[in-house]
Amino acid sequence: MDSLWVVICACLVFFMHAGFALVESGFCRRKNAVMVLLKNVGVLSVSSLVFYAVGYGLMFGEGNAFIGLSQLFPSGGSEVSGLPIYVFLFFQLVFAATAATIVSGAVAERARLGTFMAFTVLTTALIYPIVGHWVWGGGWLSETGFHDFAGSTVVHAVGGALALTGAVLIGPRLGRYGKDARVMPAHNIPLAALGVLILWLGWFGFNGGSTLSADAEGIAPVILVTNLSAAAGFVAALMHSRMRSGGLDLSMALNGALAGLVGITAGADVIAPGEAMIVGVISGVVVVEGVMLLDRMKIDDPVGAISVHLICGVVGTLAVGVFASGAETSGLLHGGGFGLLGTQALGAGAAVGFALATGGAAWLALKQLPGGIRVPEQHEVEGLDLAECGVEAYAAGKSGVAEPEAPTEAALPMVLADEVAS
Amino acid sequence: MDSLWVVICACLVFFMHAGFALVESGFCRRKNAVMVLLKNVGVLSVSSLVFYAVGYGLMFGEGNAFIGLSQLFPSGGSEVSGLPIYVFLFFQLVFAATAATIVSGAVAERARLGTFMAFTVLTTALIYPIVGHWVWGGGWLSETGFHDFAGSTVVHAVGGALALTGAVLIGPRLGRYGKDARVMPAHNIPLAALGVLILWLGWFGFNGGSTLSADAEGIAPVILVTNLSAAAGFVAALMHSRMRSGGLDLSMALNGALAGLVGITAGADVIAPGEAMIVGVISGVVVVEGVMLLDRMKIDDPVGAISVHLICGVVGTLAVGVFASGAETSGLLHGGGFGLLGTQALGAGAAVGFALATGGAAWLALKQLPGGIRVPEQHEVEGLDLAECGVEAYAAGKSGVAEPEAPTEAALPMVLADEVAS
Amino acid sequence: MDSLWVVICACLVFFMHAGFALVESGFCRRKNAVMVLLKNVGVLSVSSLVFYAVGYGLMFGEGNAFIGLSQLFPSGGSEVSGLPIYVFLFFQLVFAATAATIVSGAVAERARLGTFMAFTVLTTALIYPIVGHWVWGGGWLSETGFHDFAGSTVVHAVGGALALTGAVLIGPRLGRYGKDARVMPAHNIPLAALGVLILWLGWFGFNGGSTLSADAEGIAPVILVTNLSAAAGFVAALMHSRMRSGGLDLSMALNGALAGLVGITAGADVIAPGEAMIVGVISGVVVVEGVMLLDRMKIDDPVGAISVHLICGVVGTLAVGVFASGAETSGLLHGGGFGLLGTQALGAGAAVGFALATGGAAWLALKQLPGGIRVPEQHEVEGLDLAECGVEAYAAGKSGVAEPEAPTEAALPMVLADEVAS
Repeated sequence: MDSLWVVICACLVFFMHAGFALVESGFCRRKNAVMVLLKNVGVLSVSSLVFYAVGYGLMFGEGNAFIGLSQLFPSGGSEVSGLPIYVFLFFQLVFAATAATIVSGAVAERARLGTFMAFTVLTTALIYPIVGHWVWGGGWLSETGFHDFAGSTVVHAVGGALALTGAVLIGPRLGRYGKDARVMPAHNIPLAALGVLILWLGWFGFNGGSTLSADAEGIAPVILVTNLSAAAGFVAALMHSRMRSGGLDLSMALNGALAGLVGITAGADVIAPGEAMIVGVISGVVVVEGVMLLDRMKIDDPVGAISVHLICGVVGTLAVGVFASGAETSGLLHGGGFGLLGTQALGAGAAVGFALATGGAAWLALKQLPGGIRVPEQHEVEGLDLAECGVEAYAAGKSGVAEPEAPTEAALPMVLADEVAS
Repeated sequence: MDSLWVVICACLVFFMHAGFALVESGFCRRKNAVMVLLKNVGVLSVSSLVFYAVGYGLMFGEGNAFIGLSQLFPSGGSEVSGLPIYVFLFFQLVFAATAATIVSGAVAERARLGTFMAFTVLTTALIYPIVGHWVWGGGWLSETGFHDFAGSTVVHAVGGALALTGAVLIGPRLGRYGKDARVMPAHNIPLAALGVLILWLGWFGFNGGSTLSADAEGIAPVILVTNLSAAAGFVAALMHSRMRSGGLDLSMALNGALAGLVGITAGADVIAPGEAMIVGVISGVVVVEGVMLLDRMKIDDPVGAISVHLICGVVGTLAVGVFASGAETSGLLHGGGFGLLGTQALGAGAAVGFALATGGAAWLALKQLPGGIRVPEQHEVEGLDLAECGVEAYAAGKSGVAEPEAPTEAALPMVLADEVAS
Repeated sequence: MDSLWVVICACLVFFMHAGFALVESGFCRRKNAVMVLLKNVGVLSVSSLVFYAVGYGLMFGEGNAFIGLSQLFPSGGSEVSGLPIYVFLFFQLVFAATAATIVSGAVAERARLGTFMAFTVLTTALIYPIVGHWVWGGGWLSETGFHDFAGSTVVHAVGGALALTGAVLIGPRLGRYGKDARVMPAHNIPLAALGVLILWLGWFGFNGGSTLSADAEGIAPVILVTNLSAAAGFVAALMHSRMRSGGLDLSMALNGALAGLVGITAGADVIAPGEAMIVGVISGVVVVEGVMLLDRMKIDDPVGAISVHLICGVVGTLAVGVFASGAETSGLLHGGGFGLLGTQALGAGAAVGFALATGGAAWLALKQLPGGIRVPEQHEVEGLDLAECGVEAYAAGKSGVAEPEAPTEAALPMVLADEVAS
């Protein structure tokens, strides 16, 4: 029964990738929507293959305090945490893909496909599994009392830190900052809103499945606080952004819901409903400030991924130290020598630091490849969909017209692909 | 295991809110799509917080025949109906949000956000919990033999009646009736169709979870009849609307599927598959007639919520009295002094009457506030998205163009928000 | 618990119909999107009613080696395969609807609604149940050692073969081939991508539920290999189509993911993870070649359904013979006199042959009806949405404009419906 629950939760987490795909393509400009989708489904696919082949072994294999070193291409038959290995593996696989996909939003509309996919391979084969090993695979952080229930740090802060390295090193979109600075509005807000609701749904699996057991007494509060924190995050971000800018900003409020979800993820098993609402409110306010701060720093993140996942991931990790004092007193959690809050800060700092260092190094290395990490300027101006995919997201055919606007086959736009990808 | 099933069903019901968001935004005009989404996610968020804090206690707390009076901000540890309280609470919470969100479709495109959200607070804190207490919380209707398995009356007729009060008291959209009367066509039918399929899916949780147990013998017929009634409703509404207007009306047929779902909800546990198809056909025909009737009465309901939820909710409640005679004979149901059909009519009448009275009073009270319950006329003409949210649902960026149409930051439309909301 | 798992999986398979609806409408032209959706939800509805009434009995009723002959309008109380009959029936019902809906994509944009729905009735009442009886209902193929775990042949190859008969006999869309041949680009790629992700999710239920038990040891590898094959199919189709045409073709890659899913379906219970990736790669390459081949043969399939479901369904069926030699050696599978691969070829050949013959005959018979199987040319040029449904998928209302483009009620386009449908 435990396995059944975890499989169902893994399916919900899998579905989060549809959510990410919609949020990221919806928040981007129309001319790049196809490429965003290609990257998102590509991340899901590549992560699945790479994490199965390599990442799982480095995260959960026998090894040392830093890294696991066995279980490449794992085969069935054994058990992990009381679950058949393939159940546990599939659940972990969709988590790994989540960490990797966070990056794609922050570098959307200008990252080169080939190098981005190479970065995804590095993320799911190495960077994420190593941090994961520290916390969940028996590594050094797991012995300090550091508590990250479902991955505010391991998944979200790490993914968000990698996103930050990408956004900084690839640079902002053309025309986003500087003297002709333009807002680049979301091209399809209904899709983005649907994406957020799918993510919210998937999070019940993300947090609920992290119990790794079907014990209802354990699952029920996790699900409830997850929902309350998201709800509070939505309301708080809506009201706080209203206060800051005077308008009703749905995009910001949707990011507030995601912020509430990220924020509750580290402590969903130890934080009570009333406190979860506070965590949601804090996350909702912080995400708004984070987006504005990054914007002032001219770090261009088309979907707000850095603020949602990195900043609120750290907030959520620290929230365990602040709000779970009951659990600390009762001996459920113990912070070791630094106290619980200090240990949480230590763990988040180590994970984020490692991700910033390795992610930065990876982008810098990839930059040396022919073609680099950024699309050619003329592709960016034209839009990646026409320039690299040869299509538009929404073909222009009109009702009642015999489609004179569609090209004949001979005139089909041929993609000159040499500068596109690996 | 019971808990697991109910949690999974609650997640499905949660997902219905994505369905409502898509149906309502898809059926509305393009210029208001963002505001519709803002209201829908807002209802979900506010309902979650308010029902947890207050509504649950008034619905299920110890009290009298009319209202519960304990269990505000419930905490864990106890059991309800054999489930951990947080399982039961989360399932009830997503139901409460469903009742509240029904209203938003009927008042879409012209209700003022602030007062609408205040109405949502009243709905989930007071109106819905009180009716819920009568039927499911041990109140007076629960002792009469009234049978409302999953809420044709408690959720749908009550939500639909509240929607009716809003549609009437806020009034029709500008230009909808009168000498220049215009049809206001759905702006995104694919989204609306997806929304209906998500609702259909979610209904398996809505009805299937209402067994509150994982007994497969009990769940299986519930799921099957739910599907058959929806299918029959779709076909019946398509054919009946064809007969009435000569065209193939997908929107009407989609509402027919929803009508079939609402219609089977009260008796999904006692109605056989063959009879479920009849219930679906009746609901599908009735919803078409209902939409046409409301239109003749110049009650403007952009999405058909009143016909689907109020009218078919009542139809479904009465259907128990008509089709569940087997269950009555066998002693599973007993209608008390009025007979089963009479008791069903009594329960539906009492719930709808209470919702009409309280909902009407609430809108009238909110109308006295500065700003009232309706957006300014110039906002309605311009569209709420640009006027109040400062964005369009689908930004106009074109492929192959360096986006000259996007405003520079200095020229961003600043929202004059004083008349907008709370 | 087995029942619970199967019900949950059935809900996931149900949700695949939302996936099909989005893929098919997204890949079609804007002017036909509403009609595609109408057909898809219509297929789901009609299949539900017809398979409950007739199809189930012909598939699983007592009968002979060719067809079942009892259990029309089945009622509850009995058990099948250890499950309450309604559980088993609902799971089978959503499978039947899947086979039927595969056809709609291939004949989209020009099939006449009335005759198409008649074909759907034949499919779910007769053609699919007969083949299903052969393999899963105790018929002649079930005794040969033929292995089709979740339906690469029974559902996908049969559905794809019926799709082929339709595409050939109805003929290509106007202007698709010939001297003014035009590519007819997808009108909404984000919707189609979402559809594919929903199908991918649903497939975990499609394959995972086909164990008909909640045994985690059995489910876990099924889910894992399903995911790996889809991922490998996506990557392989993206790279292979790039090699063939020089561009990045997201639509083709999405079909590659579906191809990987179809390909693994026959052997998801006996194929190991490493081999599943090979099956995915083969399917991803084959689907690209299949689409190009059909195009050279001037068989017009707007969504690629024939290549995905028929060709990769056969590939997947044969893959059992190639990759499951371990299972054959261990006695889990036995191919009888022809060897396993020969038996797989025999089964796939018999099923596809039967579907081609009966499907072809059915379209030819329907062609004799007044109105035939194809829409009038002027409807096709104008677009079925305006011509037959009286609406556009995306009504043109603009922000900031008082909608002068919307017709007054008096001028509403009246559908001349005599040639439309039954």
